[in-house]
Amino acid sequence: MAIVTLLTDFGTADSYVGEIRGVLLSLAPGVTVVDLSHAIPPGDVAAAAYVLERCWPSFPVGSIHLAVVDPGVGTSRAGLVIGAGGHFFVGPDNGLLGGASQRTEMPVIALPVPAGASATFHGRDLFAPAAAALARGEPIESLGATHPHPPHRLTRVVPHHEGKVVVGQVIHVDRFGNLVTNLTPDLVPGYAVLEADSLPIGPLRATFGDVEPGSLVAYLGSGGTIEIGVRDGSAARRLGLGVGGKVRARLG
Amino acid sequence: MAIVTLLTDFGTADSYVGEIRGVLLSLAPGVTVVDLSHAIPPGDVAAAAYVLERCWPSFPVGSIHLAVVDPGVGTSRAGLVIGAGGHFFVGPDNGLLGGASQRTEMPVIALPVPAGASATFHGRDLFAPAAAALARGEPIESLGATHPHPPHRLTRVVPHHEGKVVVGQVIHVDRFGNLVTNLTPDLVPGYAVLEADSLPIGPLRATFGDVEPGSLVAYLGSGGTIEIGVRDGSAARRLGLGVGGKVRARLG
Amino acid sequence: MAIVTLLTDFGTADSYVGEIRGVLLSLAPGVTVVDLSHAIPPGDVAAAAYVLERCWPSFPVGSIHLAVVDPGVGTSRAGLVIGAGGHFFVGPDNGLLGGASQRTEMPVIALPVPAGASATFHGRDLFAPAAAALARGEPIESLGATHPHPPHRLTRVVPHHEGKVVVGQVIHVDRFGNLVTNLTPDLVPGYAVLEADSLPIGPLRATFGDVEPGSLVAYLGSGGTIEIGVRDGSAARRLGLGVGGKVRARLG
Repeated sequence: MAIVTLLTDFGTADSYVGEIRGVLLSLAPGVTVVDLSHAIPPGDVAAAAYVLERCWPSFPVGSIHLAVVDPGVGTSRAGLVIGAGGHFFVGPDNGLLGGASQRTEMPVIALPVPAGASATFHGRDLFAPAAAALARGEPIESLGATHPHPPHRLTRVVPHHEGKVVVGQVIHVDRFGNLVTNLTPDLVPGYAVLEADSLPIGPLRATFGDVEPGSLVAYLGSGGTIEIGVRDGSAARRLGLGVGGKVRARLG
Repeated sequence: MAIVTLLTDFGTADSYVGEIRGVLLSLAPGVTVVDLSHAIPPGDVAAAAYVLERCWPSFPVGSIHLAVVDPGVGTSRAGLVIGAGGHFFVGPDNGLLGGASQRTEMPVIALPVPAGASATFHGRDLFAPAAAALARGEPIESLGATHPHPPHRLTRVVPHHEGKVVVGQVIHVDRFGNLVTNLTPDLVPGYAVLEADSLPIGPLRATFGDVEPGSLVAYLGSGGTIEIGVRDGSAARRLGLGVGGKVRARLG
Repeated sequence: MAIVTLLTDFGTADSYVGEIRGVLLSLAPGVTVVDLSHAIPPGDVAAAAYVLERCWPSFPVGSIHLAVVDPGVGTSRAGLVIGAGGHFFVGPDNGLLGGASQRTEMPVIALPVPAGASATFHGRDLFAPAAAALARGEPIESLGATHPHPPHRLTRVVPHHEGKVVVGQVIHVDRFGNLVTNLTPDLVPGYAVLEADSLPIGPLRATFGDVEPGSLVAYLGSGGTIEIGVRDGSAARRLGLGVGGKVRARLG
């Protein structure tokens, strides 16, 4: 049976996620509903896009990814369905699905808003029914017309060189306070020394256990980019750095 | 296979929800367990009742709703099973299931406490086994005798008129800081102007995007009543209002 | 179909749990994935072990328990699979699985780290694939060689006697602020009087409702040991006690 993943900024204290689950299970009996996260900071489309881009490749082909961080709900912003890489992505056209739109050559579908849909809860009334239709095996073309515009994409800040220094930035801070950067391993050879702001961290290590407890450590993270952490602690707290913070690789 | 929804104030840091899930999967193999919320404030029966009343209609007929916010656990308060609207509701008789009891003409079943049940965890030892029995298809009458009293219902505060002003109140604050009121659309015609406490909000809009970022906005919420929000912000924080806060519709 | 439970300190704001769920559903289609908790304090192996030991007995025989609180990830600490009591336990060898290792006479399997595994995310790249293999029905011996050392076990503090006083301690604080102690009922007969630090609580009661709202109460908890709570309140906050706090039973 089809898998529908859920990614929202709804939290879990309200009824919203439960209502969406109910719609999915009503309209696509037997569907497997899987949470990615509901703890995205309210309205933080970039944070949700980061989680979505990390998660979807772990799921089987045919999975349906329902993502709703939607400050523009009920306005003229489109609701989209994108088929890409053998997966389906359903959500608002605000950059959240920009990663998927980069990976597809197929037409993108714009969802017509059903009569009676709440203007402030398209997750339940527009996106969940569309995901359920895909879960039932309905073809993507049956869900709406081709969207006439390219989907929105988030601006991605890429590292740049300043002489012999590569300058990247923090793109995510995880629960442990690890700072995920946009520095890819090809930019940071083994002899490079990492710096967070102007504080030296040292060369790349394999894992936390390679430094003493409480020490800063740079390593290749599980998302494929360089991260900075503190063994048994929080680099975000230690360094006072968050998303957008500067990280430098000094090439010696 | 049957669906059992879970609604508790147990949080997710403890073992309690996991234990309940284990009992359900042990006693009703193949059951689909679905979370409504576990983030109800401890002991807040009214908050849980609000979430339950919003969620259950989204689920398919035959769904079983296990709701446990139960400060009176282990006392003489009854444990109930209510069949209403083609759904089943299982939980303590403290008002949490009052909505269901209003929708039924069927007898309400009182659950006998099994020997050996923990006096402080009826969720695991009383309610989960009852929900599992329903999930296996056992008839509701087999779970216990008819409860001789009408189930408890929460007092519901209804809006009232003060001259040309309709006075309602906040009944829920969601994660975004949106204030859900008990004002229904029939009480608030298009020419009405909303006020929170004595601060004017303006007429009803369709959605957040109809006002400037940072502005207050009143709109018909997805639960069917008027809500007050702040575009890209929190009305609860802006207004310092919570559950019980007064909201007025001035009929011009 | 097999059940895999998940217990981590990953929180739910990041992609980590979603990635693990994706791996499980990709490698073991149809598997039932069940959360125990993802809200274990970062790196708190003892807290996770407590939740695991409380939860696993509620699940059906054959369940697979994937537990990842793993500050030593990527170091030489082993990754283990333990068969015990008809269940399987998968996770790092840091004491988290010590309870399971005490219940088994079977060889413990050490998991070889797959080539290309992230050094900081064995949950996704080592433990989830092992759990998926078990879910597919592969024999435990096929997952690796016998681990040559006894698995690590956490030091368990046991109550001791000081004259006629039994001294135990708080081993867990739950969401409600209830203090779970390591005092078992055999150590605390009916005539005993409980004390938290030096504050008298009184004799054992059956449940919260046996005392006035706001009062301290000692009772036999649902995990089988004595707990101290406050009716409609938090004993942890009232008493300023946390894990390790002393609780005495005075035998009159």
